[in-house]
Amino acid sequence: MPVYNPNQSFNFKILKKGPHAARLGSLQTPHGLIKTPAFIFCATKAAMKSLTIEQLKTSDTQIILSNTYHLMLQPGAESVEKQGGLQKFTGWHGPMLTDSGGFQIFSLGHGNIADEIKGRGMPNRSKTLLEITEEGARFRSYINGKEYLLTPAESMRIQRLLGADLIVVLDECTPYHVEKSYTQASMERSHRWALQSLNAYLAHDNGKQKLYGIVQGGVYPDLRKISAEFISDHPFFGHAVGGSLGAEKQEMYDVIASTMSHLSKDRPVHLLGIGGIEDIFQGVLQGIDTFDCVHPTRIARHGGALVKPWNRLDNHKREHLNLRNSQYKLDLNPIEPDCACTTCANHTRGYLHHLLKTEIFLGFTLIAQHNAFFMNNLMKQIRYALEQNIFLELFNSWGFQQKP
Amino acid sequence: MPVYNPNQSFNFKILKKGPHAARLGSLQTPHGLIKTPAFIFCATKAAMKSLTIEQLKTSDTQIILSNTYHLMLQPGAESVEKQGGLQKFTGWHGPMLTDSGGFQIFSLGHGNIADEIKGRGMPNRSKTLLEITEEGARFRSYINGKEYLLTPAESMRIQRLLGADLIVVLDECTPYHVEKSYTQASMERSHRWALQSLNAYLAHDNGKQKLYGIVQGGVYPDLRKISAEFISDHPFFGHAVGGSLGAEKQEMYDVIASTMSHLSKDRPVHLLGIGGIEDIFQGVLQGIDTFDCVHPTRIARHGGALVKPWNRLDNHKREHLNLRNSQYKLDLNPIEPDCACTTCANHTRGYLHHLLKTEIFLGFTLIAQHNAFFMNNLMKQIRYALEQNIFLELFNSWGFQQKP
Repeated sequence: MPVYNPNQSFNFKILKKGPHAARLGSLQTPHGLIKTPAFIFCATKAAMKSLTIEQLKTSDTQIILSNTYHLMLQPGAESVEKQGGLQKFTGWHGPMLTDSGGFQIFSLGHGNIADEIKGRGMPNRSKTLLEITEEGARFRSYINGKEYLLTPAESMRIQRLLGADLIVVLDECTPYHVEKSYTQASMERSHRWALQSLNAYLAHDNGKQKLYGIVQGGVYPDLRKISAEFISDHPFFGHAVGGSLGAEKQEMYDVIASTMSHLSKDRPVHLLGIGGIEDIFQGVLQGIDTFDCVHPTRIARHGGALVKPWNRLDNHKREHLNLRNSQYKLDLNPIEPDCACTTCANHTRGYLHHLLKTEIFLGFTLIAQHNAFFMNNLMKQIRYALEQNIFLELFNSWGFQQKP
Repeated sequence: MPVYNPNQSFNFKILKKGPHAARLGSLQTPHGLIKTPAFIFCATKAAMKSLTIEQLKTSDTQIILSNTYHLMLQPGAESVEKQGGLQKFTGWHGPMLTDSGGFQIFSLGHGNIADEIKGRGMPNRSKTLLEITEEGARFRSYINGKEYLLTPAESMRIQRLLGADLIVVLDECTPYHVEKSYTQASMERSHRWALQSLNAYLAHDNGKQKLYGIVQGGVYPDLRKISAEFISDHPFFGHAVGGSLGAEKQEMYDVIASTMSHLSKDRPVHLLGIGGIEDIFQGVLQGIDTFDCVHPTRIARHGGALVKPWNRLDNHKREHLNLRNSQYKLDLNPIEPDCACTTCANHTRGYLHHLLKTEIFLGFTLIAQHNAFFMNNLMKQIRYALEQNIFLELFNSWGFQQKP
């Protein structure tokens, strides 16, 4: 992993173009170079829940993200800043991204937004979002009940204190089950917030961070066009595709395709919160450069180990094995016989099954380690295929069809 | 770590004698050489709860133990045997020890025996011990309520299936708060069980395992003498000191001293369940070769990081820092500035405090990693001091006085 170099400025280069809108690139930050397409792992509260820095390095992780919302509440942005900023604080000296804090505020406000933006309904959860106004979002800390107002300028201030390389504008993460009129009004407010974020960022720009604008507009192609053009028209370093991408895979791929067709082509594009294997292949084809998702580490905590299509054993529709299944009880094979991770080198499915059944945390760690290696290795294969002009062959060999 | 060599036979060598009864030695097993004095880490259910094999290797761990009681219930000894035995099952290809299963049966029977044998009273816990007879111990599985009878021969059969290098006889772990007459009768039954264990072991001896006899007798010097001589008189490969060692440190050191004075001097001696820093120094002085205890990993799960006396900050009577204390909130130092472990290389006390406060499991892993390194490093220092004839100087520099 490269050493922090404060004199290293940011840049994004497209090294090669692939089929459709796919592209091979590199994203330089003061904390190191990210080869794209890349996957960004979620270190929500400034830590991957079950993986050490050493384990992240061993699996060739390039970049991790932390959540502004959680960190502003605990230990607090000032505390992180006093401890040298996120990279010194976590001991991860590579590239980092922080989100704006908006996603979790609206998530806790609307219920579970991860479900909601994907159209899976609104479970009844305790709501801590008090009010959304033109100024920002007022919410209550889930830790001590204290009230906070997160404005675009405040999100920029907090993200500046946290000190990640890549930061994003404050937006409202619009739910799926709302009227188009609400989605439009929310998008327009998010655009105003994006400009306020940009101005606040520029007022303190010291060259150590770069700002991403977020495209909203829900599942409506006309709104996505307006939003993509709006964000492209302003001097953001990168673009992120956010908001609801629909209730089904096909709808998501359509929304991504229509959004990408209107975004300027020279900036890095991040797809927020998406990390399924097919989603990544389809996203890369549409020109997405980076992805993030809690999926690889979250499923590990439920015994889910990511596998290539030819290693699926218990459910061919699923991109992972469920190692809790009793069929693995005496299985002497590693998760994947063709995997080079340390978990597959050292442990059998039978042993991992035992750890899951006895609820020993090591089981989650070992599966998360495999999943992290799997994701980084997948992105490496994708980059290699783009470089060698064989991306569609790789795409097909994983069993996917081009959509749309 | 050495590779498994089934042709490598066992041996125990005393390489050098130190002050009082202290000794530097080596214990050869088919899975590798253990330099003694050594600490044995508890991988209770065939796993260290928060550490991977890689992390154990990085901290120079020599040997781990698993508990027969837990493994016979889940996944079952036959299941472990079908998966190649404990070393293949766990992926830990170094030396291993299993206990007899007795300790946990009697622990769940009497309440919490770890407290009880140390004279800290008998908390009211669910009891699964049904009956102790001349034949063995009848108990109920805490998992599915099924009844089991553990006899000396059955403990040997299970430990043979599990396949650890070092195994121990079935004994009753006598509580502290019982009459001397009960302690004596229990000791005599444990002696009969020890011979039955030895005979069952010898009937199937294939050279792959060696058996330890256990000295009982509670806190009574006359009983300890009888038991030590009895065990010494039979062809056990090694000796273990078990049962209640008293309610206070001084009583424990007295019991160990009187026991050791009656044990033959040519076999390796293990002190069961003891692993405090001073306890180890005092034990080494009395001739103990190996120690085991859940302490280093258990305190890690409560934020306890082992430190050398000169690094104690929050409570000088305690051998660890409590990193949950708010005094560490903004502390930019590692757990120990003079520690070479990966946790101290990568992380500050402030960050570990944050992980503990947010209950992120990584915090326990990182502290356990430090504690494992600490214990292995402590044993290395002790061995070096014995080799260099400076053990008493080391002993004094850690602030201990010779007892008794």
